[in-house]
Amino acid sequence: MTRRIDLVADLGEGFGPWRMGDDAALLDVLTSANIACGFHAGDSQIMDETVRACVQRGVGVGAHPSFPDLQGFGRRDMGLTADEVRTDVLYQFGALQAIAAYNGTTVTHLAPHGRLGNLVAVREDYAEAVADAAKRLAPDLIVLAQDGRLADAARAAGLRVGIVGIADRAYEDDGTLVRRTEPGAVIHDADEIRRRTVRMVVDGVIESRNGVPIPVACDTVLVHGDTPGAIDLARSIRAGLESEGVEIASLADWLG
Amino acid sequence: MTRRIDLVADLGEGFGPWRMGDDAALLDVLTSANIACGFHAGDSQIMDETVRACVQRGVGVGAHPSFPDLQGFGRRDMGLTADEVRTDVLYQFGALQAIAAYNGTTVTHLAPHGRLGNLVAVREDYAEAVADAAKRLAPDLIVLAQDGRLADAARAAGLRVGIVGIADRAYEDDGTLVRRTEPGAVIHDADEIRRRTVRMVVDGVIESRNGVPIPVACDTVLVHGDTPGAIDLARSIRAGLESEGVEIASLADWLG
Amino acid sequence: MTRRIDLVADLGEGFGPWRMGDDAALLDVLTSANIACGFHAGDSQIMDETVRACVQRGVGVGAHPSFPDLQGFGRRDMGLTADEVRTDVLYQFGALQAIAAYNGTTVTHLAPHGRLGNLVAVREDYAEAVADAAKRLAPDLIVLAQDGRLADAARAAGLRVGIVGIADRAYEDDGTLVRRTEPGAVIHDADEIRRRTVRMVVDGVIESRNGVPIPVACDTVLVHGDTPGAIDLARSIRAGLESEGVEIASLADWLG
Amino acid sequence: MTRRIDLVADLGEGFGPWRMGDDAALLDVLTSANIACGFHAGDSQIMDETVRACVQRGVGVGAHPSFPDLQGFGRRDMGLTADEVRTDVLYQFGALQAIAAYNGTTVTHLAPHGRLGNLVAVREDYAEAVADAAKRLAPDLIVLAQDGRLADAARAAGLRVGIVGIADRAYEDDGTLVRRTEPGAVIHDADEIRRRTVRMVVDGVIESRNGVPIPVACDTVLVHGDTPGAIDLARSIRAGLESEGVEIASLADWLG
Repeated sequence: MTRRIDLVADLGEGFGPWRMGDDAALLDVLTSANIACGFHAGDSQIMDETVRACVQRGVGVGAHPSFPDLQGFGRRDMGLTADEVRTDVLYQFGALQAIAAYNGTTVTHLAPHGRLGNLVAVREDYAEAVADAAKRLAPDLIVLAQDGRLADAARAAGLRVGIVGIADRAYEDDGTLVRRTEPGAVIHDADEIRRRTVRMVVDGVIESRNGVPIPVACDTVLVHGDTPGAIDLARSIRAGLESEGVEIASLADWLG
Repeated sequence: MTRRIDLVADLGEGFGPWRMGDDAALLDVLTSANIACGFHAGDSQIMDETVRACVQRGVGVGAHPSFPDLQGFGRRDMGLTADEVRTDVLYQFGALQAIAAYNGTTVTHLAPHGRLGNLVAVREDYAEAVADAAKRLAPDLIVLAQDGRLADAARAAGLRVGIVGIADRAYEDDGTLVRRTEPGAVIHDADEIRRRTVRMVVDGVIESRNGVPIPVACDTVLVHGDTPGAIDLARSIRAGLESEGVEIASLADWLG
Repeated sequence: MTRRIDLVADLGEGFGPWRMGDDAALLDVLTSANIACGFHAGDSQIMDETVRACVQRGVGVGAHPSFPDLQGFGRRDMGLTADEVRTDVLYQFGALQAIAAYNGTTVTHLAPHGRLGNLVAVREDYAEAVADAAKRLAPDLIVLAQDGRLADAARAAGLRVGIVGIADRAYEDDGTLVRRTEPGAVIHDADEIRRRTVRMVVDGVIESRNGVPIPVACDTVLVHGDTPGAIDLARSIRAGLESEGVEIASLADWLG
Repeated sequence: MTRRIDLVADLGEGFGPWRMGDDAALLDVLTSANIACGFHAGDSQIMDETVRACVQRGVGVGAHPSFPDLQGFGRRDMGLTADEVRTDVLYQFGALQAIAAYNGTTVTHLAPHGRLGNLVAVREDYAEAVADAAKRLAPDLIVLAQDGRLADAARAAGLRVGIVGIADRAYEDDGTLVRRTEPGAVIHDADEIRRRTVRMVVDGVIESRNGVPIPVACDTVLVHGDTPGAIDLARSIRAGLESEGVEIASLADWLG
C-alpha cells in the first residue's frame, strides 16, 4: 500500500509593504498552505494574491488564524478568553473563506498559528473554542494539529484531524518535543532533517535524542520557506519522499 | 395595496472598551441592521454579540464594510485602489458571514459605510468592485444604496438593490441632497423628520427646500441611535408609519 | 501642620470617534491627570486637547503609558520583554512630552496604566525598566505607584515617588488589597469611600475588612470619572478633604 | 573653499517581525538618518536599535514622521486636517526624541515621509502645521525638504532648512521634477545617478531631460538602501564625492 503525505507551509505572512519568505518558490513544493488571515500577518490584498496562487498550483487553502498581534507576529500570549478565541477564529476563517470563494475555491483546513497553536495543544478551553468554531463553520473542515487538546476536541466534534509531523525538532523518549530552551532542541542539519522526515513518513518512526525509536503518526509535514536554505530543504524533503515512493497529495483529497 | 418598508440602522459601532449608541434600544425599532465589520468599528466580540441580538429579535443581519480606518471611523478617503476596495469588502463580509453562520443566520444585505458609502455612489470603479465582490459572495445578497453608481452596478450584476430613504436631509428641486456645508442641509426637528419619513414612504414624495414635491423611491429608512433623542425619534418614526398602515418588515423577507 | 494631598484621575481615554468618562467635569476636581498616550487609548488629537485643558485649569500633566493593546484597553498581559517595556514607555512618554511642550508645559509624573501598572508592582524587571526609562528622561520626574517594586526601583534610581492611595478597595489585616475575585473587594458605597479617603489622608489610616486600623502612606488619591456617580463622588471626596482642612495641591508643587 | 554635503537615507523601516532594506550597510555610508517613528513603519524596539546604531557610527538622528498608515506605508493621502498633521508630527517627533535622549543623543532634523512629504511641499496648511510643530519643539531643529511650501514655512519660522538633492529623477527645463507617471521620470542607471549626484553637489547644477543645465541647491543627498544594488550605488556616490574633494559631514555639524 502506497504511503501518502501532505506537505504544508505557512504562506502570505507579509503585511502592507513587507514580505516574509519566498512564497512563490514554496508553492512548487507544497500541497497545502496555511494562509495568514490578517491578525499576525496578511492583509486582504496579500490573502487574495496568495489564494489565487494556490488555486493556480492546485495547492489546498487553509486558514492560519492567530491572536490579534501584528507587532508580535502572533507569538505573544495575549491572555484572551476562550470566547475571544472563538470569535477571533470565526472572524479570520470567514475573511479567508470569502476571499477563497471569490477565487473559486474553499478553505479546506484550519491550523492555528504561533502562540495560539501552542496553547490549543494544552488548554482545553481554547481547544474547544476552536473546535466549536470549526464545526459550525464547515463540518467537513480538517483541523491541523499535533497530538494534544485540539486534536482531541476536533475529533470529539466529529471533525477530521490532520496530524502535523515535525522532523526538525528533537524528541524525548516519551514522544514529547525537547523544550526549545534546551540545547539541541532544534535540528539545523538539512540532511538530518530530510532523513528524519522520510523515516517519519515511510516508517512512522522518529528517533529520540537518546536513540530510541518512537512511533509517530503524521498526515502532513510542515516545511518552512523563510530562508533560501529552507526552500532547498523543502525541495529535498519532497524529493526524498518521492524517491521512496511516497505519494505527495493534498490532505483534503485523501484524508478519511 | 399595503405599503411595506424596512427600518435599518448602523449597529455594533463600538471597539474594545468603547461603545457608540444604544443598540439594545434600537433593536426594538429596527427590522435590519448594518453591522460594523472591524475596519471602522466593531471587533469579533462585538460583532458576535450584535449578530446574536439581531437573531433574538428577528432583525436582518447586514454587513457594513468600511475603509480600514479605525481612528477616522471610516470617514476618511484613504485613496485605495478599486482592487483594495474589492478585497477589503470580501474580507469584512466574510468575517461577519462566519459569525452569522455560527449564530445560525446569514448575512442578507451589504451597505458600505461612511466615506466608502459616499464614494461608491459616484466612483464607478469602486461601485463595480463592491458589486463584483457581492455577486460572487452571494447572488441573492441585497445591496443597500442610494440611487447612484453602486445601485446601477449592483443591478447590472443581477443583485437586488434596496434604496435607502433619507428623510433628515434637505433636497434640491432636482432631487439631489443639499450639500452638508450649506445651511439647512440637515434637518434636526424630530416632528419634521417623522412627517417627511411618513410622506416619503406612504406617498413616495419628499418636499424640496423650495417646497417642490419630488418623487422618491425608498425600500428602507435609515434611522440613528447615537443620542437618546435619536432613539425616541426612531420609535416615533416607526409608530408614525404603523399608524398609516405601513407594514414594517425586514427587506430580505419581501424585496423582489 | 497642614496635610496636603493631590487628586489624580485617568484622562483622555477615548480614541478616534469614541470617548470615555466626563473629562471636563473631572478637571474641576483634580490637581493631576494621568493622560493616555495612544497605546491603550488616546490619539494625538485627544492628547493635545487633554493637555490644553489641563494647562487651562492648572492640572498637572502625567504620562499614563500602557502595553500596546487598544482593543483590550491595556488590561491584558502581552508577555512583553522588559526591554520592550522600556522602549514602549520611552515612546509614549516622549509623545506626550512633545505635545506638552507645544502647549507650554511639561510632563511632571509617570503612572503606568492597567496591567502594566499591576505588573510593575510585582515584577522587578518591569519595575527597573520603567525606572530606568524615567530616570534618563527626566531626573525630576515623579513616579506614581502603590508600594511595591516600581516604588522601590524608582527610589533606588533617585526619582521621587508619589504613593497612590486607594480608598475604594477592601484591605486585609496585613495591608494588602483584598483580591478582586473575592466578594467585597471593591467598595461601591459613595459615603463609605469618602469617609475612608478622608481618614486615609488625614490620619494616615485605613480600616481592614476585619476592622483593624492599618497605617497607609498616601500622596495622591486616585478618583474616577467614568460614570456620573463617579464625578459626584470625586467632588464629594474633594469637599470632604477640604472641610477637614486638607490642602488640595498638585503633587509636582510640593512633593519633596 | 571645500564643498560639504550630508548623505541621508530612510532607516528603521521595519515593523514587528519585518525588516526593510539593509540598515547596517547603509550606516557605513550615511551621515544622517531619517528614522521611522511608528506611523508608517518602525516600532519602539526598532527605533531604539536604529538610534543606538546611529550613535555608534556618529550618524545624525532625524525624525521621519508620516501619516498614520502602516498598511499603506505612509503613501496614502488620508485626508487629515492640518491640525491632525500638527499633533501627529508632535507625537512622532516626541517618541523618537525620548528614545534618542535615552541613548544620549538628540533629534537634530525632521523630514516628513512619503505622501506627507509630498504634500507639505505644495499644501500651505500642512507646511505651516509642520513648521509650527518643529519650531515649538526645538528652535534649532533642521527641516529637510525640497524647495516648496515646507521650506518656505520653516524659514519663515526661523528654522534652518536642509535642501534635499534628488539625483535619480529627471528634471524639466524649469527645474521641476518630471512626473513619475511619465516615461524616464526615474533614472535607474547607477553610473548616471552617481555622475549626476557629483555634478549636483560639486557644481550646483543638474541637467534637464532636454540637456539644459539647471542650477540646484543641495545640502543633503538622499540615498536608498532597499536593494543590494542600492547599497553599492550609495557607496559609489560617496566615493565619487570624496574623490572630488567634497567633505561628507552630518548636516547638524555645519548647516548655518
